[in-house]
Amino acid sequence: MTQVPDPIEFHRRSRGKITINSKTPLDAENLSIVYTPGVGAVSTRIAEQPDEVRELTGKQNTVAIVTDGTAVLGLGDIGPEAALPVMEGKAAIFSEFASINAVPICLATTDTDAIVQTVRYLAPGFGGVNLEDISAPRCFEIERRLTADLDIPVFHDDQHGTAIVVLAGLINAMKVTGKGSDVRIAISGAGAAGLAIAHLLVAYGMTAIRISDSKGVLTLDRANINDDQREVLALSTADESWPVGGSLIDGADVLIGVSKAGLFTADDIRRMAPDPIVFALANPVPEIMPDEARAGGAVVVATGRSDFANQINNALVFPGLFRGLLDHRAPCVTTDIKIAVAEALAGLVDEPDAEHIVPSIFDQRIVPGIADAIGACQGQRC
Amino acid sequence: MTQVPDPIEFHRRSRGKITINSKTPLDAENLSIVYTPGVGAVSTRIAEQPDEVRELTGKQNTVAIVTDGTAVLGLGDIGPEAALPVMEGKAAIFSEFASINAVPICLATTDTDAIVQTVRYLAPGFGGVNLEDISAPRCFEIERRLTADLDIPVFHDDQHGTAIVVLAGLINAMKVTGKGSDVRIAISGAGAAGLAIAHLLVAYGMTAIRISDSKGVLTLDRANINDDQREVLALSTADESWPVGGSLIDGADVLIGVSKAGLFTADDIRRMAPDPIVFALANPVPEIMPDEARAGGAVVVATGRSDFANQINNALVFPGLFRGLLDHRAPCVTTDIKIAVAEALAGLVDEPDAEHIVPSIFDQRIVPGIADAIGACQGQRC
Repeated sequence: MTQVPDPIEFHRRSRGKITINSKTPLDAENLSIVYTPGVGAVSTRIAEQPDEVRELTGKQNTVAIVTDGTAVLGLGDIGPEAALPVMEGKAAIFSEFASINAVPICLATTDTDAIVQTVRYLAPGFGGVNLEDISAPRCFEIERRLTADLDIPVFHDDQHGTAIVVLAGLINAMKVTGKGSDVRIAISGAGAAGLAIAHLLVAYGMTAIRISDSKGVLTLDRANINDDQREVLALSTADESWPVGGSLIDGADVLIGVSKAGLFTADDIRRMAPDPIVFALANPVPEIMPDEARAGGAVVVATGRSDFANQINNALVFPGLFRGLLDHRAPCVTTDIKIAVAEALAGLVDEPDAEHIVPSIFDQRIVPGIADAIGACQGQRC
Repeated sequence: MTQVPDPIEFHRRSRGKITINSKTPLDAENLSIVYTPGVGAVSTRIAEQPDEVRELTGKQNTVAIVTDGTAVLGLGDIGPEAALPVMEGKAAIFSEFASINAVPICLATTDTDAIVQTVRYLAPGFGGVNLEDISAPRCFEIERRLTADLDIPVFHDDQHGTAIVVLAGLINAMKVTGKGSDVRIAISGAGAAGLAIAHLLVAYGMTAIRISDSKGVLTLDRANINDDQREVLALSTADESWPVGGSLIDGADVLIGVSKAGLFTADDIRRMAPDPIVFALANPVPEIMPDEARAGGAVVVATGRSDFANQINNALVFPGLFRGLLDHRAPCVTTDIKIAVAEALAGLVDEPDAEHIVPSIFDQRIVPGIADAIGACQGQRC
């Protein structure tokens, strides 16, 4: 058995997971070009022609990974310092998979206005903003306001990265099971990820959606639902085709869990429609383990984990997505871009089967494939 | 003749001067340690023991280079985008000379409160803050407030980096000329650099200082001087030993120019005391060219340029200074640290002569020498 290093000892030895390096060795000649006096001409040029900053600096290959540490992994509100190792890990992935310079920005504030204002101030040096691990509902407003204010793309990965990779997996899972767009979808979890998934599935034409939170199935007449949840419910057609009977998953073709460990049993899966699809994405322990889901009749099972088949992981999306946004200077991430990226990702699986609905994260076609798909969306309005 | 590359073409080809890289290749095993699920244990540890962020992440080797683009090189207020190539060049130097991760942060605000608040919010991910190219007098208040608020060192390089390297050069220039601490010093330029130089020289025991701005020599009874200038004047003893006669440099032993091109002639230098020392640091064109200063009798001449002897350049200081601050976890930069760094830098010139008062920037003893000097200052109060 391989000895896997202890993560804390690994991090203690490594003392950070990224390095910042000069592209060129600094001898006397290079130093006088990279820094004073030569750099003065470059600054003067940008002062005269501001858009040249995208040509003459690293702005157009640099992404800010911005968090306030309020919704980190399954750990919740652990603060900006404790979020830093996650952001560094993400920066390492940005670099290794897409050659993007990504900078962890861990903010010592959870105030919505302050976060928006801070990111506005930081924007000149960055070509894009990846919002990360910011709790709902603040994450919705922060993304909305920054997208409106900035001329660089802003992308909350916990919402849209998750939604895109779920849609990609679902496209192939439906091929495997022979289900169509009238599929009935149960989403367990009504936070940032659950609502973003619902929005994207509706945009893709799959509108029969039920959503639950810890208090049960959401309905428009329920007391304790927020505006963002209400907006999604208004888009769902589940009431017409698939009236709520108190249970989330009775009769559902698809269960998408973005909630918490162990919520479902094999008996629950047995109450779903024939040939059910189960995405149990809670990390590190899914809503139901793959063996148990299959025992209940699930035909396609996906989790967020690398030790099972069908790993539904945002890292399938964000490196290529930002590669495409930066290369094609997309000012925002439209719904069409999200769908194009999901379709491109799904299309990389040549012959989907129950154990292969998404490509391996190490498939080197992913980043260029997603980036090209974004290029084909150019010219869309934000 | 060597063909020196055009800086704009160099920058257009390079598209940024720094890269951010993963310290480790990301295979399946590493990915599960660097990112989820392994990183969760690291975040949990830091949430429980916050100071572990300095051991388990890159915080303690990462510096924010913060500017608002208001005082860039000799170009003035050119804005945050146009400042970016300078900050990238500085980050390249941090990396090449001191293996420090430095992140350009170019802020889209010039408001003092907003800059202070933004840097406070950014602080969790950084081990130190290098303020850069922020105009006076805002730079004084920004540095003062941040130093009071943060538990990481904050250092405005245009003030203190310049002051430290000037003091280092002056220590050796005085050896060369046989002058003592009763030396009469004329500073041309009463902005951030000029005032910081005056403060540090006074702290070092050289108190006979005159300072001028574009309107002439500063005196306490002059109308248009600001509080920061008044504070420095109150420390000077020039009035006693060397009464102001309307001219800045009549009778001065030392002229330090941090002002603008071509302010002085050989005839001006002839009115200084015997064996005068001239540091003409305006960039790229000094207050007086070295040939002309020597024609006027100057014994030691220094400039900011690499094409003359005695290059007085902040890059002699900031890489080693931050290396020392980070390695020894200094919470601030005390006057004793500044003096210790200047003495360490001066001490690296074995036998100072008129053309060798500071070491070459490529002298590999500089960074460890300065860092060790800071280590020897440990335990001082801020």
